[in-house]
Amino acid sequence: MKRLLILTTAMTLGGTVAAQANADLQALIDDPNQWVIQTGDYANTRYSELDQINKDNVGDLQVAWTFSTGVLRGHEGSPLVIGDVMYVHTPFPNTVYALDLNEDGKVIWKYEPKQDPSVIPVMCCDTVNRGVAYADGKIILHQADTTVVALNAETGEVAWSVKNGDPAKGETNTATVLPVKDKVIVGISGGEFGVRGSVTAYNLADGSLAWRAYSMGPDADTLMDPENTTHLGKPVGVDSGTASWEGDQWEIGGGTTWGWYSYDADENLFYYGTGNPSTWNPAQRPGDNAWSMAIFARDVDTGMAKWVYQMTPHDEWDYDGINEMILTEQEVNGEARKLLTHFDRNGLAYTLDRVSGELLVAEKYDPTVNWTTGVDMDPASETYGRPAVVAEYSTEQNGEDTNSVGICPAALGTKDQQPAAYSPKTELFYVPTNHVCMDYEPFRVSYTAGQPYVGATLSMYPPADSHGGMGNFIAWDNIAGEIKWSLPEKFSVWSGALATAGDVVFYGTLEGYLKAVSAETGEELYKFKTPSGIIGNVMTYTHGGKQHVAILSGVGGWAGIGLAAGLTNPTDGLGAVGGYAALSDYTALGGVMTVFTLPD
Amino acid sequence: MKRLLILTTAMTLGGTVAAQANADLQALIDDPNQWVIQTGDYANTRYSELDQINKDNVGDLQVAWTFSTGVLRGHEGSPLVIGDVMYVHTPFPNTVYALDLNEDGKVIWKYEPKQDPSVIPVMCCDTVNRGVAYADGKIILHQADTTVVALNAETGEVAWSVKNGDPAKGETNTATVLPVKDKVIVGISGGEFGVRGSVTAYNLADGSLAWRAYSMGPDADTLMDPENTTHLGKPVGVDSGTASWEGDQWEIGGGTTWGWYSYDADENLFYYGTGNPSTWNPAQRPGDNAWSMAIFARDVDTGMAKWVYQMTPHDEWDYDGINEMILTEQEVNGEARKLLTHFDRNGLAYTLDRVSGELLVAEKYDPTVNWTTGVDMDPASETYGRPAVVAEYSTEQNGEDTNSVGICPAALGTKDQQPAAYSPKTELFYVPTNHVCMDYEPFRVSYTAGQPYVGATLSMYPPADSHGGMGNFIAWDNIAGEIKWSLPEKFSVWSGALATAGDVVFYGTLEGYLKAVSAETGEELYKFKTPSGIIGNVMTYTHGGKQHVAILSGVGGWAGIGLAAGLTNPTDGLGAVGGYAALSDYTALGGVMTVFTLPD
Ligand SMILES: O=C(O)c1cc(C(=O)O)c2c(n1)C(=O)C(=O)c1cc(C(=O)O)[nH]c1-2
Ligand SMILES: O=C(O)c1cc(C(=O)O)c2c(n1)C(=O)C(=O)c1cc(C(=O)O)[nH]c1-2
Repeated sequence: MKRLLILTTAMTLGGTVAAQANADLQALIDDPNQWVIQTGDYANTRYSELDQINKDNVGDLQVAWTFSTGVLRGHEGSPLVIGDVMYVHTPFPNTVYALDLNEDGKVIWKYEPKQDPSVIPVMCCDTVNRGVAYADGKIILHQADTTVVALNAETGEVAWSVKNGDPAKGETNTATVLPVKDKVIVGISGGEFGVRGSVTAYNLADGSLAWRAYSMGPDADTLMDPENTTHLGKPVGVDSGTASWEGDQWEIGGGTTWGWYSYDADENLFYYGTGNPSTWNPAQRPGDNAWSMAIFARDVDTGMAKWVYQMTPHDEWDYDGINEMILTEQEVNGEARKLLTHFDRNGLAYTLDRVSGELLVAEKYDPTVNWTTGVDMDPASETYGRPAVVAEYSTEQNGEDTNSVGICPAALGTKDQQPAAYSPKTELFYVPTNHVCMDYEPFRVSYTAGQPYVGATLSMYPPADSHGGMGNFIAWDNIAGEIKWSLPEKFSVWSGALATAGDVVFYGTLEGYLKAVSAETGEELYKFKTPSGIIGNVMTYTHGGKQHVAILSGVGGWAGIGLAAGLTNPTDGLGAVGGYAALSDYTALGGVMTVFTLPD
Repeated sequence: MKRLLILTTAMTLGGTVAAQANADLQALIDDPNQWVIQTGDYANTRYSELDQINKDNVGDLQVAWTFSTGVLRGHEGSPLVIGDVMYVHTPFPNTVYALDLNEDGKVIWKYEPKQDPSVIPVMCCDTVNRGVAYADGKIILHQADTTVVALNAETGEVAWSVKNGDPAKGETNTATVLPVKDKVIVGISGGEFGVRGSVTAYNLADGSLAWRAYSMGPDADTLMDPENTTHLGKPVGVDSGTASWEGDQWEIGGGTTWGWYSYDADENLFYYGTGNPSTWNPAQRPGDNAWSMAIFARDVDTGMAKWVYQMTPHDEWDYDGINEMILTEQEVNGEARKLLTHFDRNGLAYTLDRVSGELLVAEKYDPTVNWTTGVDMDPASETYGRPAVVAEYSTEQNGEDTNSVGICPAALGTKDQQPAAYSPKTELFYVPTNHVCMDYEPFRVSYTAGQPYVGATLSMYPPADSHGGMGNFIAWDNIAGEIKWSLPEKFSVWSGALATAGDVVFYGTLEGYLKAVSAETGEELYKFKTPSGIIGNVMTYTHGGKQHVAILSGVGGWAGIGLAAGLTNPTDGLGAVGGYAALSDYTALGGVMTVFTLPD
C-alpha cells in the first residue's frame, strides 16, 4: 500500500518543481521493493536491502514467470519495477513493454520506435541497450539512433522526444540515461567512428537542452575551468582538452560516454568515464589525448567539471574508461571517506576520494594484467598517477603494422560494461570480469564520417596459464586493493551483479546460467539455465509480499557479437569472434525475461 | 541403463534390415522414458505411461532448464528425447539442435540448413515446422523447402537428402515425417497455391523413392484400386480421383497432406487426411473434388489405398481434413473395435472402424458449428456419410463476390493442426479447440504457378454467444459423441495436448501458459507462463530417474500470423490477423524450450 501511494504521488506531480521531482524519485529509489533505476541506486551499488531470499533459502528459488521480448540480439540492462508494473526494454529496435505484475506480465502498453535500420552497422559492439530510466511519471528511453524519448509511464504515450546525435556521423547510443533533479543526463557512443564524446543534460519537463560537455576540445566545449577543475589535485590549465592532442585530431578524438553514471546528491556531482581516443592506432594521435580514458566529476546543474582523472593517457589498447563509478562511504585508515571505486578496462581497480579526486588505490584485479607494472602512487613524482607501460606490450612502441602479442587484458578489458555490485555488509565489491588476452596490430586509417575509424586488427584468447576459462567472478576489497575470492568461469562474465542483504550475490554467465553465491565466501548456492546467454544485469523487487529476482537473458554484446551478428571470421567483431567461438556450444540468441521467487 | 542399451543397439544397426529397424524403433517408442516420435506413438494418442508427475503433485512442478532456439516465428511440434539427448528443431530456417540432457542442454551438435528464403512467402500459415523424426540412428528433418534430410543422430552429419517438391510452384513443407518399417513417409503443403497433394515414401536407408500417391488424379497417380479401395464400404470405381472434377482442375486441385500420420502395424496401414481443394472459391471447381478433404488408409509398403472417406465433399470453407487420426482399441456396444477418431476442421468429430473404414459416429464437438445440421448416418441413404449443408452458410449457394457472414467454425476450424491426446484410462480424448466464426467472400482467381491461389476474403471473430473467448479445451467421448467437459480459453488452444498415466492432461495456450488439468474433471492443477505463446505440443520423458515435461513456446502459426509476420490489416493472414489481434496484449515472439520437473 505504501508503495502504491508513493507511486501515485510521483506520477501525478507532473514534473513541476525540480527539487520536488528529485525527492520523489529519491524516495522511490530508497524503497527496496522497487527497482527504479538501472544501477539500483544513484551510488551504483546494485545492492538491495531485501533479504526474504537469503543465503539459506536461495537454493529453493523457482522460476515464477517468463517473458520473451521478441528480439534476438544481445539484451543488456535490466527491467525496472515501479509499483505493479515492470518496464522491459529490448536492443534495437528498442521496444519498451509495460508489463502487469498482477497478471504474470500481461502487456499494459508497448512502445515500438520507428528507427532507420542504417544505425545497426554503425553500432560497434552489438545493437544493445542498457535500459530505460524513470522519473516524474515518465519512462525515459535513449534509442540506438540517439533519440531520447520520454513516455508517459501509465500509457506509453510520447511526452517529448529529442535527438542527441547523428547516426550518419557514427553517433549512436547504447547507454541508459541518468535522471537527476530536473534533468536527464545522457551520453553517446561512437568511439570506433571518430565521434567526439560528450555528456548532455536535457530538461526532464520538456526535453529542451540544458548543457553539453565534450570530453575534449576547448574549455568552452569541455566545461572545464582552468583554475578550479583539478587533475589529481592540480588545476588542469587552459584548454586541457586540446593541449595533449596534435592539430585537430581532438575533433574526431573519441572519448565517448556510453557507461553507467552515478550521482552524489550532497556534492551535487555526477560521475562517469570517457572511452578510447580514436583511432585505435596510437601512432596517429601523439600525446595524452585528454580527456579520453578519464573519470569526470561534474556539477549536475551546470555540467562544469570539478575534477578529472585520466587512467590511461595515450591509450594503445582500446581500454575505454567508461566503466561505472561506485560510490561508498567507508573508513580508510580509521577515517570516514567518501569513496569512488572503479574497475577499469585496463585491468586496474581504482579507489579515489570522490570529493577531491585524490587517488587512493590502484591495483590489478586480475593478476594476468601485463601491459603495466602499476600506477605511480607518489604525489611528488613526475609521473604521479600514470601507469608504467611495459615496452613489450606497447602497441605504440612496437609500431604500426607490427602485431603485439600476448597483451593482457584484451581490448574488452578485465571488465567491460558489465557492472559490479557492492555490499555495505561485507564492504566487498562483486565484480564480473574477463580473463582474456590479445594480439593487437595497429595500422593507418583515414577518417570518413560515418565509416569505421578503428585502425587495428585484434585476436582474443584466454591467458596462457588460465584456469581453462575466460572469466572470473571476484570479490574485491577496495581499501586493501586485493581479491578476496575468485570464481573461475568458462567465459567472460558479461552480466551485471546484484548484492543483497540476504548475503547473496547474483550474476549471470554467457552460457546462460543465473548463479547465486554466498557474499562472504563465494560458495555457489543456486544456478539455473535461462533460455540464452546472459549479458543483462540481475535486479530484485517485491511483488505481492514476495521478493523476486529477475534477469534478461539474450546473448550478444561485444563478447557475443559472433552469435549476435552471425559472424564467424575470428578477427571479425573487433577481434571478439574467435575468442568466444565456443559460445555457440552452449547457447543461441533470444531475449527472455526470467523472474524467480521462493515457493509459497 | 536399459534405455542406453536400447539406444546403442538402435544406433549401431545402421538400417540394414527393414523389419529389424522397425522393431528397434517400436521398442524405443514403447519405452515411456523416451519421446521418439512427435505423436508419442504410432497411434497418435500422445499418452504417456509415466506417472511420477501426477494429479496430486503436478502443482509442485518447477522449471528445470530452458533453451532459446534463436528463431522468432511460430514454433510447432515438440522435441524428441532419445537416451540422454534432446533433439530440438526450429521453424524456418529449420535449425536442429542435439542437446545434452546431462548438461542442462549444452549443444552437442547443431544443423543449420541453407535454404533459399524465397520459400517464406509461399508458406501459407507461418514458417512453422512440426518437428523431426527418429529412426535407425538417423534424425529426419523435412525442411520448409521440401528437402528431406537424414542426419546422423550422434554427429549431425548428413546421411542423405532428397528434394520432395518445388517451392517455385508453391510446394513447401511444415509437417513431420512418418518413419515406418524401412520407409519415411512424407506429405506436402501448398493448398493455397494450387499444389496437388501427395504422400511419398522414401527408403530410410538412402532416401531413394519408394512410391508416391496423389490425393487426386487417375488411379495410377492416386494408387487406388477401383474394385478394392472402398468409400464407406463401396468400391470407389475407376479414376475416382478425377471423376468428381471438371476438366483439368484436379491438376491444381489441392488436397495437400500436411497433417499428422498414424500407423497400425497389424493392418500394415497408415492413416492421414487431405486438405482443401483449390481454390477457396467453390464456384471455380464444381463437383465433390475427391479426394480432397478425405481420410486415407494406405498400405505402408505399396502406398495402395485400402479405404478413403471424404468428410467435406466440395468444400466451401477451407475445412482441410488433415487433422490427426487417433487409433484406439475400444468397446462399442460390447464389441471390441479397432477405431480411428478424428476431430475435423469442419467441426465434426468422426469415429470410424479403421480396418473397414465404416463410419460409426459423426458429431459436433463445438455446439456453435452451424454450417451443417449433421452427417447422414443412414447407410441406405443416397447422401450416406455426407454433411447436410445449411444454405445460409453455403458460400457456394450465396455465390461469388457475396460475403457469407457468421459461419461457424471459421476456416481454421473447430480444430486445426493442434493435436489431441487420448487416455486409455479415461477413454477420453483431450482436444484443443478453436471457438471462432467467420465471414467468407469468394472471388474468381486465376492460377499462376507459385502465386497464391486463394480466391476468398475472410474475417474471423468469436461466436456471438461465446464465453468471451476464442477457444476451449475439451474432453470428448468418441463413442457417445459427446463433450464430457469443456474449459473456456481466451484464445484458440493452438498447442498439442499430452495425457499421462498420472491422470494429468497438459496443454499450452496462445498467451503462453502451460496448463495441467485433471484428466477426469478438467480441474486446473498447475499453470506457468512460458516466454511466448504456445503452439507447440507438450511431451514428457525421464532423465536421471525423474519425469520431465517439455514444451516449445514461440507464438505464431495461422492463429498467430499477425505477430509472426508483423501483419496488422485485419483481413491479412487469410483472415486471421483481425481475430487474434489481442494476442499482442499477452505475448511477443521467441522460440524457447521450457523443461519442467518436480523438486527433489
Ligand atoms: O567507443 C565507443 O563508443 C564504444 C561504444 C560501445 C557501446 O556503445 O556499446 C562499446 C565500446 N565502445 C567498447 O569499447 C566496448 O568494449 C563495448 C562493449 C559493449 C557491449 O555492450 O558489450 N559495448 C561497447
Ligand atoms: O493447404 C495447405 O497446404 C496448408 C498448409 C498449412 C501448413 O503447411 O502449415 C496450413 C494450412 N493449409 C491450413 O489450412 C491451415 O489452417 C494451417 C494452419 C497452420 C498452422 O501451422 O498453424 N498451417 C496450416
